[in-house]
Amino acid sequence: MIVVMKSNATQEKIKRMKRRVESLGLKAHVIVGTERTVIAAIGDKRDGAVETLSSCEEVEKVVPILAPYKVASRETKPEATAVRALDLAIGGGRFGVIAGPCSVESEEQIMQAARAVKECGAKGLRGGAFKPRTSPYSFQGLKEEGLKLLAAARAVTGLAVVTEIMTPQHVDLVCQYADVLQIGARNMQNYPLLQAVGETRKPVLLKRGHAATIDEFLLAAEYILDQGNKQVILCERGIRTFEGHTRFTLPLATVPYLHERTHLPVVVDPSHGTGIASLVPAMCNAAVAAGCDGLLLEVHPDPTSALSDGDQSITPAVFAKIMEDCHKVAAALGRPF
Amino acid sequence: MIVVMKSNATQEKIKRMKRRVESLGLKAHVIVGTERTVIAAIGDKRDGAVETLSSCEEVEKVVPILAPYKVASRETKPEATAVRALDLAIGGGRFGVIAGPCSVESEEQIMQAARAVKECGAKGLRGGAFKPRTSPYSFQGLKEEGLKLLAAARAVTGLAVVTEIMTPQHVDLVCQYADVLQIGARNMQNYPLLQAVGETRKPVLLKRGHAATIDEFLLAAEYILDQGNKQVILCERGIRTFEGHTRFTLPLATVPYLHERTHLPVVVDPSHGTGIASLVPAMCNAAVAAGCDGLLLEVHPDPTSALSDGDQSITPAVFAKIMEDCHKVAAALGRPF
Amino acid sequence: MIVVMKSNATQEKIKRMKRRVESLGLKAHVIVGTERTVIAAIGDKRDGAVETLSSCEEVEKVVPILAPYKVASRETKPEATAVRALDLAIGGGRFGVIAGPCSVESEEQIMQAARAVKECGAKGLRGGAFKPRTSPYSFQGLKEEGLKLLAAARAVTGLAVVTEIMTPQHVDLVCQYADVLQIGARNMQNYPLLQAVGETRKPVLLKRGHAATIDEFLLAAEYILDQGNKQVILCERGIRTFEGHTRFTLPLATVPYLHERTHLPVVVDPSHGTGIASLVPAMCNAAVAAGCDGLLLEVHPDPTSALSDGDQSITPAVFAKIMEDCHKVAAALGRPF
Amino acid sequence: MIVVMKSNATQEKIKRMKRRVESLGLKAHVIVGTERTVIAAIGDKRDGAVETLSSCEEVEKVVPILAPYKVASRETKPEATAVRALDLAIGGGRFGVIAGPCSVESEEQIMQAARAVKECGAKGLRGGAFKPRTSPYSFQGLKEEGLKLLAAARAVTGLAVVTEIMTPQHVDLVCQYADVLQIGARNMQNYPLLQAVGETRKPVLLKRGHAATIDEFLLAAEYILDQGNKQVILCERGIRTFEGHTRFTLPLATVPYLHERTHLPVVVDPSHGTGIASLVPAMCNAAVAAGCDGLLLEVHPDPTSALSDGDQSITPAVFAKIMEDCHKVAAALGRPF
Repeated sequence: MIVVMKSNATQEKIKRMKRRVESLGLKAHVIVGTERTVIAAIGDKRDGAVETLSSCEEVEKVVPILAPYKVASRETKPEATAVRALDLAIGGGRFGVIAGPCSVESEEQIMQAARAVKECGAKGLRGGAFKPRTSPYSFQGLKEEGLKLLAAARAVTGLAVVTEIMTPQHVDLVCQYADVLQIGARNMQNYPLLQAVGETRKPVLLKRGHAATIDEFLLAAEYILDQGNKQVILCERGIRTFEGHTRFTLPLATVPYLHERTHLPVVVDPSHGTGIASLVPAMCNAAVAAGCDGLLLEVHPDPTSALSDGDQSITPAVFAKIMEDCHKVAAALGRPF
Repeated sequence: MIVVMKSNATQEKIKRMKRRVESLGLKAHVIVGTERTVIAAIGDKRDGAVETLSSCEEVEKVVPILAPYKVASRETKPEATAVRALDLAIGGGRFGVIAGPCSVESEEQIMQAARAVKECGAKGLRGGAFKPRTSPYSFQGLKEEGLKLLAAARAVTGLAVVTEIMTPQHVDLVCQYADVLQIGARNMQNYPLLQAVGETRKPVLLKRGHAATIDEFLLAAEYILDQGNKQVILCERGIRTFEGHTRFTLPLATVPYLHERTHLPVVVDPSHGTGIASLVPAMCNAAVAAGCDGLLLEVHPDPTSALSDGDQSITPAVFAKIMEDCHKVAAALGRPF
Repeated sequence: MIVVMKSNATQEKIKRMKRRVESLGLKAHVIVGTERTVIAAIGDKRDGAVETLSSCEEVEKVVPILAPYKVASRETKPEATAVRALDLAIGGGRFGVIAGPCSVESEEQIMQAARAVKECGAKGLRGGAFKPRTSPYSFQGLKEEGLKLLAAARAVTGLAVVTEIMTPQHVDLVCQYADVLQIGARNMQNYPLLQAVGETRKPVLLKRGHAATIDEFLLAAEYILDQGNKQVILCERGIRTFEGHTRFTLPLATVPYLHERTHLPVVVDPSHGTGIASLVPAMCNAAVAAGCDGLLLEVHPDPTSALSDGDQSITPAVFAKIMEDCHKVAAALGRPF
Repeated sequence: MIVVMKSNATQEKIKRMKRRVESLGLKAHVIVGTERTVIAAIGDKRDGAVETLSSCEEVEKVVPILAPYKVASRETKPEATAVRALDLAIGGGRFGVIAGPCSVESEEQIMQAARAVKECGAKGLRGGAFKPRTSPYSFQGLKEEGLKLLAAARAVTGLAVVTEIMTPQHVDLVCQYADVLQIGARNMQNYPLLQAVGETRKPVLLKRGHAATIDEFLLAAEYILDQGNKQVILCERGIRTFEGHTRFTLPLATVPYLHERTHLPVVVDPSHGTGIASLVPAMCNAAVAAGCDGLLLEVHPDPTSALSDGDQSITPAVFAKIMEDCHKVAAALGRPF
């Protein structure tokens, strides 16, 4: 950590700050520059000491040097983590596709969707039973009934069930049916929920928050890892920016960047990332080319009748073509799946 | 709702869409323009019908005309709502200040803070007992012990206790001690939590999410109102933008804009909105001048020793000056408090 | 255009607005809804009438239906435009790569760079002679001397010279040396400059502004097209968002989205789009997979000695590998180049 | 400047980097931390050396310590700068209001506007003669004819003429008529234009770019100052964010923040900052309360007939009330004007 003193900080204030850094168990190294004095604080300190120091009036700013996350860091664990659930494997050289409708709507719908995506090579089945909806007046999901339908679809197809969990109170219930617990973007910083899924031994698919920085994203993963659950999949699903022509802005550079910083696998969700079905195929190809470890896609037997996210859902026919193209892109880059 | 058809939509497709709009219980009105045909769909429909229609391939876009929220709307209830807790009154011509430390750290600290802010005219005492922290390694709050200390401070000062609640599981516990339940920015779209506090009859202070649009903000309030709890205070606390010189960007135009749209009171949090203590006084004055119904401020007896948010916390002395100036600004504009 | 009246607009105000719409040469169609009256204004009007109407107090908002650009629109010209300069061809099924250093620094540097990128298959040579630099204290380019060096590199390699032009006053000078005129992101809305390059018959590479919407981007192209110059290449180079881990956020969904809206070719600049050399290869693959018509890349013989943008410049060796991989991705998707 | 080495950087690489820092004329100070080695580079270097170093593969990042601007810095010149033009004085304790229509449309319109704003206490008259419009099909201004009308309005009212200049080619022409040269947000990084106005001795009103950071804003001012023109007024006019309910997001914390960093005066433009006339009065009060040195406002005798920006223009009656309220707020805070 580098403590930058104000240009008018007196010798006495600098000394005081030096003592203060030392009192935190860090080694202080004073460097007198031409316009500023800075104090390098040496030691491994990731617990908020930064905030304390920067509130002193003689301090201009505090610059952290170390990343704030640790267990998620590639430096802590250089080899890539692979997460598995039934036949679904993501990370560590394995590429996995999770597909299905936004919401579970009926037995017929989920069965049709499951069979269709299975046939094209998906290994995971997505489908919301508990749906976080922006409006209280929108369809909120079939709840436990939806979980049962997902389990029934798994029984028939062998697909791993990936479904969202919205509150710690549902952990036991959802764990009875799901193979992978999904944390939605709105809940990325719902810490009691992160801790609750961290206490299970189910793989967790953690979606990036709409406005989360990469550090915040990895710290959210760290909350789960910190509870002993090492099976975390990161999901880039787009961020909120000034762009209004797409639902969100999908920043694919996150994929190689995260691969440099963390050992955790990274999947991409082009359905939410664009919000427009016609853009999904191109963005699937792009995500694979960027090196992601998997895709999360909304596929609906009949998007025009979907109770949620119809706009961004693709048909099974389009999904089949996407899978074909993604296979080709991956193979061309020497990463067949 | 206006359904804009693609320029190449055939007569048949337009007819089909007309029937579809009608099947939703809406009246369809086809308008043939020079380059586009649009269908005006008449009727009150706020439940996601928009998404369904826009996923049809012949549709270019669907433009909603009505606001998606209803109970929160100024049209539904023209007169301003006033929210009260002990001596704290916010909205409907009443201005209330809630101040105190970011976290409750010790009996001495919270007592000192409570006495100091009381003396300057605050009517609410803020203080976190359950703290949502970005890093799992940061101080997480004193939990129930913190709630007890807040209640003790109330016993001495008469200040209304405003404290954050992070999960539905804590509702009963927190309600035993708090006068106002705070929903933090990270939880603005934690719907089970919104519903849980909506079921109580405690006033709720709802902070705007880091990347929430105004519609999303009001729909989050709507989740609470929809459960029968009418005592909701909206809090603008800054949004995430490309600006890095402040912790968040504080968009004060939200204040008059919300007053046009909703009857709910609006308070401003310049502490989180800037993240820099030296900018807080100017932004308090500005918020009052913009017409807000109250302020939420981090005041710490000794910010440099704070366990959280020391950077943005002000001293009691600065708080006293802020109160004095805000009184002057409010009085100058004919809104004395 | 749809004029949405306020809920309390009287019959008289509605009639007045109807007359006003008609006075603009549009046909007015009044639709009485359950909560709002809207007036559909029919006719082709793209000249700011919208602003005029929405300032009337009885109007809540005005929703445009038509895109504001016309000549750039895919509806006006369905077939893709191909832009050519020497052997460089971009668009209409042709894929072109423009590569070279950020700035022309010396004869040796530009010759080395030109030979290296030519050998790997680039058809265009980029290199800044007039450099827009954020700080007045940074290297500002070799100016006319730089243009001469670019022309010399072209004489040897046959590469088309692509170089930035910063002011209308330099049009004649730059046209003497350049094959493609580049408009930088900072100048995307420098209208006198757009008009000046629009008056030439040189192809123009127009970079998206840091915070430009797609409509603004296409309207900037429209300024050039409107002067009679039909040779415009659009370049997505990243936008400014809250993300700080990359220099900009590169939203590749722009590529398929623009292809839907406009006939103009779209190239991607992953060097500026990420600002980090190690992320450039993955984003080149992704851009090709997303369907772009070309790439713009910063390649420097020795990035660590570059006078500008060293951070994001790649070496010739990395560039060779990128070209190889991009060829594979393009071929896999049936779009060999 | 702090050079942070990668965790796996060898001793040899660290030595090499130390030599490299020294070769730039800086003193290098190697600090070996628990997880990282950092090199503190001491000396005053603001010319892009940062970029060069961070492109070395053994470097993780380079953290600048000094602000990149110098002449604009409050450290260089602690006392506030006052800018004057006729009776208009802004900065150094003087508060000035510039008001008038977006565009000069006719003699009658500008005269009416000028008389109205003068009567209420404005000292500057704004009015666009050369208009940068997003669409080439929108009204582009009366050009020289507009400048003549502004001069005529000055002759009658004594108001200082503030008008936009879009290209270096117009400097001589505009200087014949204008008292203050306005650089619009789209041209904030049009460096040839900044240099051209920097060569004149007319005061310059520099608007912040839509996505400009504070450092970029001050460096744009530095381009003007660097040419010897010390009369620069900074104008906060709103930034582009995800917020869509206002035209831009107006971040008033810029005002006190800039006052800490620079001696240049800061004015606020609530008309563009919100884009909605009904929000302008509240934001004027807020801007004054935040401590700005002046206001820039769009006032039109009849906003509903305005050829541009009618949406955000206020009437003379509203302007009169704003001036009254702003006087009260300023007086309440001990800064009467």
